[in-house]
Order: sequence, then C-alpha cells, then structure tokens
Amino acid sequence: MNKPSIPKGTRDFSPTEMSKRNYIFNTIRHVYSLYGFHQIETPAMENLSTLMGKYGEEGDKLLFKVLNSGDFLKGITAEELQDGATGRLAARLCEKGLRYDLTVPFARYVVQHRDELQMPFKRYQIQPVWRADRPQKGRYREFYQCDADIVGSDSLLNEVELMQIVDTVFSQFGIRVAIHINNRKILAGLANLIGFPQKMIEIATAIDKLDKIGLDNVKAELATSGISPEGIEKLMPIFNIEGNNSQQLDTMATLLANDETGKKGVEELRFVIDSLESLNLNNTVTIDLTLARGLNYYTGCIFEVKALDVEIGSITGGGRYDNLTGIFGMPGLSGVGISFGADRIYDVLNQLNLYPTDTTLVTKVLFINFGEKEAACCLKTATMLRKHGISAEIYPDITKMKKQMSYANAIGVPYIALIGENEINSGLVSLKDMTTGEQMQLSPQQLIEKLS
Amino acid sequence: MNKPSIPKGTRDFSPTEMSKRNYIFNTIRHVYSLYGFHQIETPAMENLSTLMGKYGEEGDKLLFKVLNSGDFLKGITAEELQDGATGRLAARLCEKGLRYDLTVPFARYVVQHRDELQMPFKRYQIQPVWRADRPQKGRYREFYQCDADIVGSDSLLNEVELMQIVDTVFSQFGIRVAIHINNRKILAGLANLIGFPQKMIEIATAIDKLDKIGLDNVKAELATSGISPEGIEKLMPIFNIEGNNSQQLDTMATLLANDETGKKGVEELRFVIDSLESLNLNNTVTIDLTLARGLNYYTGCIFEVKALDVEIGSITGGGRYDNLTGIFGMPGLSGVGISFGADRIYDVLNQLNLYPTDTTLVTKVLFINFGEKEAACCLKTATMLRKHGISAEIYPDITKMKKQMSYANAIGVPYIALIGENEINSGLVSLKDMTTGEQMQLSPQQLIEKLS
Repeated sequence: MNKPSIPKGTRDFSPTEMSKRNYIFNTIRHVYSLYGFHQIETPAMENLSTLMGKYGEEGDKLLFKVLNSGDFLKGITAEELQDGATGRLAARLCEKGLRYDLTVPFARYVVQHRDELQMPFKRYQIQPVWRADRPQKGRYREFYQCDADIVGSDSLLNEVELMQIVDTVFSQFGIRVAIHINNRKILAGLANLIGFPQKMIEIATAIDKLDKIGLDNVKAELATSGISPEGIEKLMPIFNIEGNNSQQLDTMATLLANDETGKKGVEELRFVIDSLESLNLNNTVTIDLTLARGLNYYTGCIFEVKALDVEIGSITGGGRYDNLTGIFGMPGLSGVGISFGADRIYDVLNQLNLYPTDTTLVTKVLFINFGEKEAACCLKTATMLRKHGISAEIYPDITKMKKQMSYANAIGVPYIALIGENEINSGLVSLKDMTTGEQMQLSPQQLIEKLS
Repeated sequence: MNKPSIPKGTRDFSPTEMSKRNYIFNTIRHVYSLYGFHQIETPAMENLSTLMGKYGEEGDKLLFKVLNSGDFLKGITAEELQDGATGRLAARLCEKGLRYDLTVPFARYVVQHRDELQMPFKRYQIQPVWRADRPQKGRYREFYQCDADIVGSDSLLNEVELMQIVDTVFSQFGIRVAIHINNRKILAGLANLIGFPQKMIEIATAIDKLDKIGLDNVKAELATSGISPEGIEKLMPIFNIEGNNSQQLDTMATLLANDETGKKGVEELRFVIDSLESLNLNNTVTIDLTLARGLNYYTGCIFEVKALDVEIGSITGGGRYDNLTGIFGMPGLSGVGISFGADRIYDVLNQLNLYPTDTTLVTKVLFINFGEKEAACCLKTATMLRKHGISAEIYPDITKMKKQMSYANAIGVPYIALIGENEINSGLVSLKDMTTGEQMQLSPQQLIEKLS
C-alpha cells in the first residue's frame, strides 16, 4: 500500500509548527482585542453566487468548487455536458465554493446581518482560505488570513489605530518593519494634474523605478505610455521630492493645491502621519507614493509593511475602501482594514529565530513509570500539579528507562519526576532538571512551588 | 438584489457567539495541554482516496467532494458522463474531499509522518468537519470536533487520564455529567457465553430495554433475534445485576470466569474504575453495559458522557481501538481517544446560562469623542492603557453623544472615559461606571489601577 499523502499545496502542521503558529495567531488576536475588535467566523463554504465575479476572471478559475451532493447531474442536459465550456458546466454542477479570502465573506456578512450590527463595526477574523493557485515555494492552496476591519466610520482615527496595531504586533514579535503609507487620492490628484486621470499606476511605477533606471529613462517610459511632455514636466517636483514626511507633504500640498482630490489626499495622509508621530511608534512610518496595490478597490490610505531584516516582500497590508458592500446591494459603506500574512510572518520568525523559548513547551514535567503501584502514586501527584496549572504527563507504559528517557528528550520536557519505592515511603518526589542534570528530593508543596 | 445568504446547514458566528465558542475551545485546549497533549492540524481537503470507504456506503455519499480545477472533463468519455452512476462519475470529477471527521485524517497523519513521531504520540485537534447530512435542528453541515488521542500505548492509564480530562473539563464548565463506561470485551464475552458471538448489539439493546419493556418482553425480543432459550437464561445474572460498580464487576467476573476475552474486559474495566475512584472525580462514573457505540471500531473501553441537567444526548464520547492505521497499511497501532461535542456543549452552557460573566467582554473602556483635539488626547491615554493590557476603544467619529452612548451600550462596555476641555487642562480623565452610573475623576495612574 502506498504511503498516504495530502493534496498538493496543502500542509499538515506538527505540534512544534502548531505551537509557533498559535504564538502568531494569539499575539495578533490579543492586540486586536486590546483595540476593541471583535472576532467573527464565517463558513468555509459560501454560495458560489457570493464568490463568483468578485476576484476577476482569473479569480473565478482559482475558486475551489464543491460538487453538489446527491444527484448532481439532475436537470443537466447531454448538450450541457458535452459543450466543453467547463466554467458554465461547473456552475451547474456546483452551488458552493470554498472562500477565497476573508473580505468578500465579511462584506456578505455585513449585508446579511445589517439589522443586528451596531456601526461602527470592528471585526477581526482569523480563518483559512483556499485558492487553486499553482503551488510553489511559499504559496499554498490553503493558508490563513488574519484580517481586521472597521466599517461604518469615515474617521481617520481608524487608520491611525490600525497602524498602531501593526506597530504593536511587530514589536511584540521582535520583527523590525518599515510601514509604508500612500493615499490613492494623491495618486489620483497627480494623474489629474498631468491631464491623464487613468494613469495612476504608471505614475506610481515611474516613481518606483527612479532609483533603478534614472530620471531620463523614467521620462522615456512615461512618454511611451502616452503621457505628454508637459504632463511629465509637471511631475518634476515629485521626482525631486526630498526631506522627511512633513516636508514631502508640503511639496505635495503645493503641487496639488488646485486639485480637490489631491488636496484631500495630502490632508488625510498628514493627519495620519502627524498622529502616529505624536504616539512614538517603535517602527518608522514612511510615505511611499509607489504603493499602488488594490487601486481598483482602495479609495484612501493604502498600507504596506515590510520586514527590514528578511527579504520576503509585504508581510501586512491594507487600506481604506468606500464601497465594501456595494456588490451585495448595500452601497456607501466605508471602511478600512488590514491583513497580516501569517505564513510569511512564520517564515520571518523562523529565519530570525525570534520565538520565545517557551513557545513549543507543552509539558512541564514527565513522571517516569516504574510499575503499577508507583504509577498510581504518580497519577495522584500529577493530578495535584495539574490542579495548580502545571502541565504533567505520566509515561503510560511500564517499560525500560532508556525508552522513557528518549521520549522525555523527544518532547523536550524540562523536568522529569521519579517516584519509586523510596519516594512512596518517604512521601517525597525526586525531580531532575533536564537542562542542568541537577536532581532534588521535594515534598509535594515544594514540587508545586518549583514547577509553578 | 436579494439579501445574500450562506449554504444551508452552515453558520456565521457573531462576536458574542465567538466569545462563547472560544471559551469552550480554550477550556478544552487548556485541559488537553495540562495532560501533555500536543496540537496538530490537518488540511480541510484530503485526497478522496483517503476518505472514501472509511465511513461506510452512507458516509461516502455524505462526503463533500471538491471539483478538480482546470479542465475537469479532460479524459472523461461521453459514456462515463451519460451512464448515470453519479458515484463513479464524482470520483472522476473530484480528487479531493472535505474532511468528514478528525479520526481518519489523524490516522493518515500518523502513517504519513510515522518516521518523525515519537511514540506514544499524544495529539489533540480542534477543527471543523463537513458532512452533507440533511440539516436539521442541532445538526449542521459544518461543525467543530475537539479530539484527543494517544496512540502507540496499550496502557490503561490513558483511559484513566482521558476520563480525568472529561471530569476536569465539565467541572470547569460547571456542567454536571454522568460518565458511562463499558468495555467491548465484556459484551464479546457475554456473546461468547450464550454461544452467539455476533450478537453483542442485541445483548446491549436488551439490557437497555429492560427498564422500559420488562424482562419478559426483553426475553421475547432476544428469542426473535435467534438466541436460544439456554443462551437467554445464561444472561439472567446480567439482567438481575445490582450494587455499585465494584459489586457489578464481581458479578461479571463470576459469570465470565471461563471466557478469556470477557475476563480481560472485566479486569480492564476494574482497573479504570478503581483508579478513577482513588482520584476523587467531581462527576460519577458508571458502568453501562448498554453502551454499544462504534463496536466495529472500538476494541476495549467505550465512553459516553451525558449532561445531567439537560436532555441532549451524548456530549462527549470515545474509546480504545486496536487498529487505527490498518486502513493505511500500518497495522497493530493501538490507541484511545475522546471527542468533545462543542456544539452540544454550547447548547448546554446556553440553556443553563453557565458562561462566566466576562466571557463576551472585549472592550473595558470606551473613550467618548468630543472633537479632534480631545480625540488626540484620548489616543494617547488609550495607548497607555493598552500598554498595560487594558482593552480600550475610542469612538472614531465626532458625533452626537446619544449615538456614542448607544454604541457603548451595544458593545456592553463596562466603563466610558470622557476627555473634554477641562480634562485636557487638568490632566485628569472622567470615568463613568456604566453599571452603577458612578462618575469619578482619575489621574492616568489611577485610571490604570481602576481598570486593571
């Protein structure tokens, strides 16, 4: 019989991996709670009608679809089966699909439960998502997202607090990060300024390439993309922008003084940056006009977080959107959110070896099993320890000491307890510190104190 | 546009529901850890070949199957499409399915990772499973299981500790339960005794019906099922069994003295019962020969736990098995496990109103927003509180007091903080206790102490 396996792009998580992952999830969860976010969960399966068309044509193909149960061929004609249009046939064979992200299910949730929700609604959600992407290093078909969003509030305080959350989470992890912020309205203002309102991405890309290919080449590329020489000239203050965040904002404010959208963007960004400066974050916040992710979705601030000490790309991102729920017939609901990339954070913590030493520790003490009478005594002592919150195991089988010690080493237990004939008579327990090798005789009370 | 919905039999969990569910999961998780169980997770999707044939013919139909991505019709002939055998066609269209329980994925995990695992392996797993059952009250198509198993150890200490876990978990919940224990070997011994080794279930059912339909009717039913009058007569000591656990075990021991299997079953049960009695559990443990669940699977002790104060059926169950991994080509691995039914426990806790009062509490204090300058001050004070582990929210929008207070009530926050002109000047914060209505002026340090 072949060794069983799991679908490609999916993973088993071993006890050690789970401990590390729980450390990540618990840290994020705890910080979300400190800021008053409430957890929700949505089902793994959504109606396909909820998911289809929300992620572009490519996204539709990457949805995992769940075959209808029972007679899934019922009502499907021979022609439909034969015409080869698998997309259309899939929609007939499958009514449900696995969620692709947490944003669309959240939008669906908000609309479905609108009458029960108090706005502003601050929710977080930590659940797996599934994508039929081609698996490759660091890209999985099942992975967790850790999202927090506030909907029903336009206030920029939300942006400020989300960046505080980012700063707090990565400070707790010990990961040094750079927080990049942009505002779509500034990109829109610049595109208006040069008379090409659709060319936001080209502008962001041009600024991004400045250091790599130089001003002349950037200008040439912009010209190729159809922007007029006069337009390109108007961007010169941006290409030459200098100074700290505040000085850069001054330059932008001057340049965009006559564009309502652009001006608004500068004001928003200034409020967020100024507020964050007054709060003394541990990590630096930098204006980054090259940030152009999700421009078809984000309408205000856009965030991206990168680790400083590991090359791995974005490990957290987010932004402000004005129309989360419009796709489900509830227009005009503004919100802002962030999403931590748990799998990449896991890789960064591993590479930098930043897990607290007790992350993978489960059992504090293992009782060696010398025989039935001794084990009965171990059971009582272990029960007492557990009542004091100390995690304890008894080696269940009466077997060679060597085998029991090799188990102790494998689970990495810091102490072993020995109860033999002598200990039963004296009422003491022999405790061995597995790190120092030191051995001591302790009364039950001393044992509790030692292991607490 | 229609209000969006979710597939039938699935659920959204609101913040309040999540708080309660997390309380359940965290309690179980914590107790599992105290006993040295390590968490693992397996993917939602397994290869269909891993799942098919493991749950009987009915189970195969209840598996949710995931349509192959890409051209799922490739290689499927017109005949296969047309022949109407949906089961066979489904297997061609789908390579993957959603896990149906946690046991088969665990068995697959153990075999796949056998070289990395140290035996005995104590694992717990808390994850959703999916079944295409007809949804009805209390039965869902997506629900969580909370399993713990020890494999690679024959020791009955494992049975003892699992029952301690059950006792501890329900004690922490405040749910009074009855723990029922049986042993398959005793049922097998009784069936041997009467000369009908296959009639274990009939015997268990007969004992179960004794109180309801009386001895004569039970005898009649046993006769109808083909058991001889002599056989039925031999069961009389069991029908007349009396006394406490120990006395009942004596009766069984006498009756089964000449049957190796039955004798072994009595000894096993006696060890477990005696050990548990010496450990002074909070809940009672009762021998229950009518327990006949999973007889095609369990080989030793069988457990079932029922709430005493709510009629809801079994809320936890488990048992000893000798061949978990045989289906994947690794025979002879013995283990024992339990599974908490989180959804039923949720219902019991709700009905008895047993949640600790702070279960659904997320935010400790809400800062009322009086304006931009005041909010900037709130931001600093809230940040300070959060650094001390106190969860704090600032109402993000500058809006009417009434609206802010209605938000405070909706999220059930116990305190609100007010920072206006006066407070900015004095450096104090006005804090209002939402329960008593009491209002006080506190320095930042006093505020921390009050809310900690």
